[in-house]
Amino acid sequence: MSNATNGAPPIGVGLLGMGNVGGGVAQILLSRVEEYARTVGRPLQIRRILVRDPDKARAVAVDPALLTKNPDDVFDDAGIHVIIEVIGGEEPAHAYLRRALESGRYVVTANKEVMAKFGPELLAVARARGVDILYEASVGGGIPLIAPLKRDLLANEITSIRAIINGTTNYILTRMAREGADYAVALKAAQDLGYAEPDPTNDVEGIDAAYKLAIMASLAFRTQVRPGDVFHEGITRLTARDFRYAAELGYAIKLLAIGRREDHAVQARVHPALVPLDAPLAKVDGVFNAVQVDGDLTGMVFFQGRGAGSMPTTSAVVGDLLNVAHGIAQGAPERFVWREDPAGAVLPMAEVRTRYYLRLRVADRAGVLAAITGVLGETYGISIASIIQKEMHEHDQTAELVIMTHEAREADMRAAIDRVASLEAVAGIGNFLRVEG
Amino acid sequence: MSNATNGAPPIGVGLLGMGNVGGGVAQILLSRVEEYARTVGRPLQIRRILVRDPDKARAVAVDPALLTKNPDDVFDDAGIHVIIEVIGGEEPAHAYLRRALESGRYVVTANKEVMAKFGPELLAVARARGVDILYEASVGGGIPLIAPLKRDLLANEITSIRAIINGTTNYILTRMAREGADYAVALKAAQDLGYAEPDPTNDVEGIDAAYKLAIMASLAFRTQVRPGDVFHEGITRLTARDFRYAAELGYAIKLLAIGRREDHAVQARVHPALVPLDAPLAKVDGVFNAVQVDGDLTGMVFFQGRGAGSMPTTSAVVGDLLNVAHGIAQGAPERFVWREDPAGAVLPMAEVRTRYYLRLRVADRAGVLAAITGVLGETYGISIASIIQKEMHEHDQTAELVIMTHEAREADMRAAIDRVASLEAVAGIGNFLRVEG
Repeated sequence: MSNATNGAPPIGVGLLGMGNVGGGVAQILLSRVEEYARTVGRPLQIRRILVRDPDKARAVAVDPALLTKNPDDVFDDAGIHVIIEVIGGEEPAHAYLRRALESGRYVVTANKEVMAKFGPELLAVARARGVDILYEASVGGGIPLIAPLKRDLLANEITSIRAIINGTTNYILTRMAREGADYAVALKAAQDLGYAEPDPTNDVEGIDAAYKLAIMASLAFRTQVRPGDVFHEGITRLTARDFRYAAELGYAIKLLAIGRREDHAVQARVHPALVPLDAPLAKVDGVFNAVQVDGDLTGMVFFQGRGAGSMPTTSAVVGDLLNVAHGIAQGAPERFVWREDPAGAVLPMAEVRTRYYLRLRVADRAGVLAAITGVLGETYGISIASIIQKEMHEHDQTAELVIMTHEAREADMRAAIDRVASLEAVAGIGNFLRVEG
Repeated sequence: MSNATNGAPPIGVGLLGMGNVGGGVAQILLSRVEEYARTVGRPLQIRRILVRDPDKARAVAVDPALLTKNPDDVFDDAGIHVIIEVIGGEEPAHAYLRRALESGRYVVTANKEVMAKFGPELLAVARARGVDILYEASVGGGIPLIAPLKRDLLANEITSIRAIINGTTNYILTRMAREGADYAVALKAAQDLGYAEPDPTNDVEGIDAAYKLAIMASLAFRTQVRPGDVFHEGITRLTARDFRYAAELGYAIKLLAIGRREDHAVQARVHPALVPLDAPLAKVDGVFNAVQVDGDLTGMVFFQGRGAGSMPTTSAVVGDLLNVAHGIAQGAPERFVWREDPAGAVLPMAEVRTRYYLRLRVADRAGVLAAITGVLGETYGISIASIIQKEMHEHDQTAELVIMTHEAREADMRAAIDRVASLEAVAGIGNFLRVEG
């Protein structure tokens, strides 16, 4: 033990969960005893690890006496000052987190689902008990995102957040863009490499991203954005053709999580979006995550890194632990106070205004364009930025059009698309996508 | 005043300096009284502003009674809890910062020169007095960089930092790359736009970047890297031709600040470098700053934003102030403890190993290549990755060559270049640059 911590009593740690992330946390805490003791000023000691099966073979060697399947063994150990939750999922994780805070323990969690659904509730419990719950690992793996929003950018009014916050879908979209592959082919490749799960629903439908956006938007806009308030649309409708046309128009296609402050409301939505090729977010490829935060003082700040994986997530969990432990060693950990402003409710998606890309197939004859622009412009007041005829199909005498609009209300755009689809000269709507930036 | 802070006594702020950044800080603190009181839990009150000339007309309207040219008016005011230093330069800023800490005040500074030269000294004074000095604004304007290194990435062993940390030079290099302009032309354009000062030495010679690298490297590697230890080479030798050849080879040219941990030493150097076009740093253009940090757990984390300007810097200064004030309001601000590890000294530049780009003009005749590769390879053991003949010059029968080497020791490379330059068949060394990544 170093001089700095000679004789100092250890800070006890309880670990809930010993999976991919929990194994990483245990491994790092056990192998960096000396360094972390110097950082904190007191040694850290794992006292208990809650697991489902104590007898299972494990990649990380820990003293079997630490393992227990009885949560009381963790909660009843008065020598445990900090409890780390890396079980994931809603229950029992949520109940454990409440119990940990109610028992006066500091808490570190990587749980995006619980923090998205119950974050303000848990922060209130922490405050009432004079402790704190830290959750840097819940969003963006090892990229510092929660701390900048909670602390470093505090002087700003955050005006928007735009994020690529799900590595699985970004990997799939990168393959589609680079190889001209269709969705099913790219998904299969991602599954073969272990980047996508056998049931990829949570990722490809934008549910995972919606959790993470709810957490970030709640902090940035100081209002509770619930996951159920976040509009989410997945990537399963995208085709190789959309990527080709987008590239020709100067855009990439990314699954974006977007939060934006409006006058008396906030936007919170997850969907594929056309992003200008020279925007920083357009250049984020593969499994990387990135978040662009716009503050009224600082302007654009951009964060990029590995959003998942055992070691990046361990970096965030152990980083939170070291900061809490350092505060305990100093006698007074700083506590984050959740402050809610009257920022207003989440704007319904129907009220959101953005630009659109519309791909459709029409009969190749006179008067068709006039009919379509009539529906968009005259009936719905949607102004058209450009119409490009992309391809002719000789066999059925149809042409493919791509229409780019100026900003329009989502409800108007959806109604207009329905009306356009019902025109006799329109053979079918290929896709419609939102444009960001 | 909001309910949360009703009747709570204010936290007094003393401001040293009222220039570009000081004006921004004053303006924001005076216009966001209510929001910041809610964030902190107590109102913030500017009590004194030290200026050179209290009678000067100012863009930001402040109560003239706040202005003073006597530093004692700030230091002797017992109602001032936090002192903000935005004077810049070494003295008297350094003396003021010491005096502020010795008097038991928390301190926020934007001063890169003082923090680079005296950071550990001032942190030790702060520690002895039970206060803290915060300096997020000293590097990278509004981009959170100091806090991630101090706190969020604490679990990692940081292996390297690579940064574009001077907006003036990045603007000049971007113009040179895009327009094929030579250095003098691009410098003039930057000066005309106010991005470069009439005497640009500090920026274009890499001195400003060396200060910032010293601050970041000291934190990241937990060893005091002094500005005098940082090798720095400026951008004045670069030519349009180097940009053209670099692009053809798949590289951008950027002024990089590089810190790297070695086994028993650290590297700290600022110089122009060839960066692969697909690397995130190669895509950072104009006045933007960006820092790529590599941690052993988190992998690559990348930060980008506006590195200078009144409002981005104000964002960092006020962010630090809000965090300190929040801690004071809670009764116990968290204090950063400077912890020095035996990371070892800064490696002399002569001992650094990297890859090189060498441009030279040679006589167009047989045996020349063999002579050059003989010097590099046989005499100095420098392995050549590629040799490309770029241009022929009919009038003097010379050819321009670009040689890319494998990794070599700087001292060997320099000696080899001297020897190559003395070969009878070599008409001149055009340039030599280091390659990164």
